[in-house]
Amino acid sequence: MNSTRRFLVNIALVLIIGIAFGALAFADSDPLPSWNDGPTRKAILDFVETTTDSLSAGFVPEPERIATFDNDGTLWTEHPMYTQLTFALDRVKLLAPEHPDWKTQQPFKAVLDNDMKALAAAGEHGLVELVMATHAGMSTADFETIVTEWYATARHPRFKRPYTELAYKPMVELLEYLRANGFKTFITSGGGVEFMRPITQEVYGIPPEQVVGSTIETKYEVVDGRPVLTRLPKIDFIDDKAGKPVGINKFIGRRPIAAFGNSAGDREMLEWTGAGDGPRLKVLVFHDDAEREYAYGPANGLPDSPFGTFPQSLMDEAQEKGWVVISMKGDWKQIFSSAQ
Amino acid sequence: MNSTRRFLVNIALVLIIGIAFGALAFADSDPLPSWNDGPTRKAILDFVETTTDSLSAGFVPEPERIATFDNDGTLWTEHPMYTQLTFALDRVKLLAPEHPDWKTQQPFKAVLDNDMKALAAAGEHGLVELVMATHAGMSTADFETIVTEWYATARHPRFKRPYTELAYKPMVELLEYLRANGFKTFITSGGGVEFMRPITQEVYGIPPEQVVGSTIETKYEVVDGRPVLTRLPKIDFIDDKAGKPVGINKFIGRRPIAAFGNSAGDREMLEWTGAGDGPRLKVLVFHDDAEREYAYGPANGLPDSPFGTFPQSLMDEAQEKGWVVISMKGDWKQIFSSAQ
Repeated sequence: MNSTRRFLVNIALVLIIGIAFGALAFADSDPLPSWNDGPTRKAILDFVETTTDSLSAGFVPEPERIATFDNDGTLWTEHPMYTQLTFALDRVKLLAPEHPDWKTQQPFKAVLDNDMKALAAAGEHGLVELVMATHAGMSTADFETIVTEWYATARHPRFKRPYTELAYKPMVELLEYLRANGFKTFITSGGGVEFMRPITQEVYGIPPEQVVGSTIETKYEVVDGRPVLTRLPKIDFIDDKAGKPVGINKFIGRRPIAAFGNSAGDREMLEWTGAGDGPRLKVLVFHDDAEREYAYGPANGLPDSPFGTFPQSLMDEAQEKGWVVISMKGDWKQIFSSAQ
Repeated sequence: MNSTRRFLVNIALVLIIGIAFGALAFADSDPLPSWNDGPTRKAILDFVETTTDSLSAGFVPEPERIATFDNDGTLWTEHPMYTQLTFALDRVKLLAPEHPDWKTQQPFKAVLDNDMKALAAAGEHGLVELVMATHAGMSTADFETIVTEWYATARHPRFKRPYTELAYKPMVELLEYLRANGFKTFITSGGGVEFMRPITQEVYGIPPEQVVGSTIETKYEVVDGRPVLTRLPKIDFIDDKAGKPVGINKFIGRRPIAAFGNSAGDREMLEWTGAGDGPRLKVLVFHDDAEREYAYGPANGLPDSPFGTFPQSLMDEAQEKGWVVISMKGDWKQIFSSAQ
């Protein structure tokens, strides 16, 4: 009996010490270690405290803690061009031998000649043509393989690293911090869902079913006795600008209480998020760090970018409505996970 | 010190006894109490055991345990007509005073005259017209209010109960059992998402973001300074037949490992589910219990139903491919939660 008692005492001690150390470790750990102290960090911490404190007037029950994040420029680098556009251009070059007509036909000629000016001149219509020629005509399974292989080999022209390593460390910390506080995190991007889903779990901890984005049409077919979904060269849905609240409503069916973007494409998502009752966090990532990443957009006094625009009117709206604006230069200790 | 030691011993004892009782209670509880013993129940239990046992060859990691459920006729009663169609007809009658032309115009005249034959003759085109006239033209928030109020007052013509009480108890148990085993449960219905989302958490424990269904287009607008999503009289997506795998791919982005349906509208979803590697559970609910619910469809030797058809060809495919067919009469001890 004495040895049993000692055994039980030991178990109890181990449990109590474990709990005490765990509590210490928890109290001690900074959930946002890559963020500098200041009003931006404080606004985020205050919002999470308010919405998760059951005694607070701003308490939000766990199932309603929906947080939506734009991807390009908000969670990872979008310069010098969207990752998905780089993928499309790489595929044009890869497929060119099968399409001799592309040598003389725009926008393909511009891609093969590396003529970015002519490509920009092809406009949105040209972009859609590029996407259709490179993203459709195969099964969803084959496209997933193509995308996965591309991510494994492609390197960013400036940072010389895989694109999956160009996620912003402070934002990944923020995603984890929100989830640890009962938030469900979603991506709501103008990018194609099937270009993002293969990597969002690994890079952001976000599973495929929580990725909302643009879609092209697919068709169910039985090929050689096996069902496949074939990707058709037809746009199904563009998840950008006024399409973002539409996509949120269609795919998620709840209004977010927190939304994060970085461009005019996210304006309506932030407005829609802000129009709900109770506390709301609306955040824009402002690219003002040319040294560690990029600085661009009219609100920086810099030329407009063909993609990822942050116009002065967006900055004005942010200030008028009290949206939080993250200065990458001032608010972030570190940009990427690996050392710069 | 002696009292401290006694205190620690007590804590340890309470913990150990608690764990032991918890284990006993768990081992003792039947996860599917409304299911009769037999091959159907066994097939479900075996599948869950195989896919959740980390030592089994058929083990499936938790994030990939996606289970999709049709709604009408699979999770709740779809006779004498789809709940959503009943809602549409009720709304036509409610809105009729504002539309004097409906008295002479089909399919509205058929509804106002309670002429189900003329309504059926209006076919799919007539149905779409009814849906557009009753489901569009308001904001998403107003539609949610309309739907919620309708559920609160409408009663099923035969069972005289709210439609939300006509969920099948054995299927609700199955949903809970799957979730307790790390499955993520989704609805994949031909019905409108915004007709289901207001009640799926309460009735099935499924949150809005896990409801896939048919959608109509919405438009983001700022009305009196406030952003709203306005429902447009235009079909966006029909989540039925070959549309079900398309919807699963678009909204969920993973292939289910278990799928449940009850009609020809679910055939492609079950085929798509079955075409994946590893263990797959494909299940059809067969309505053969005229006494406690309904019996219908060619596979019952009964006239074809205008909705919820179970043709002989579906039964043949189920037998050929080893799909599980639930006999409501034989496999279920009880149909609804309240006593029959």
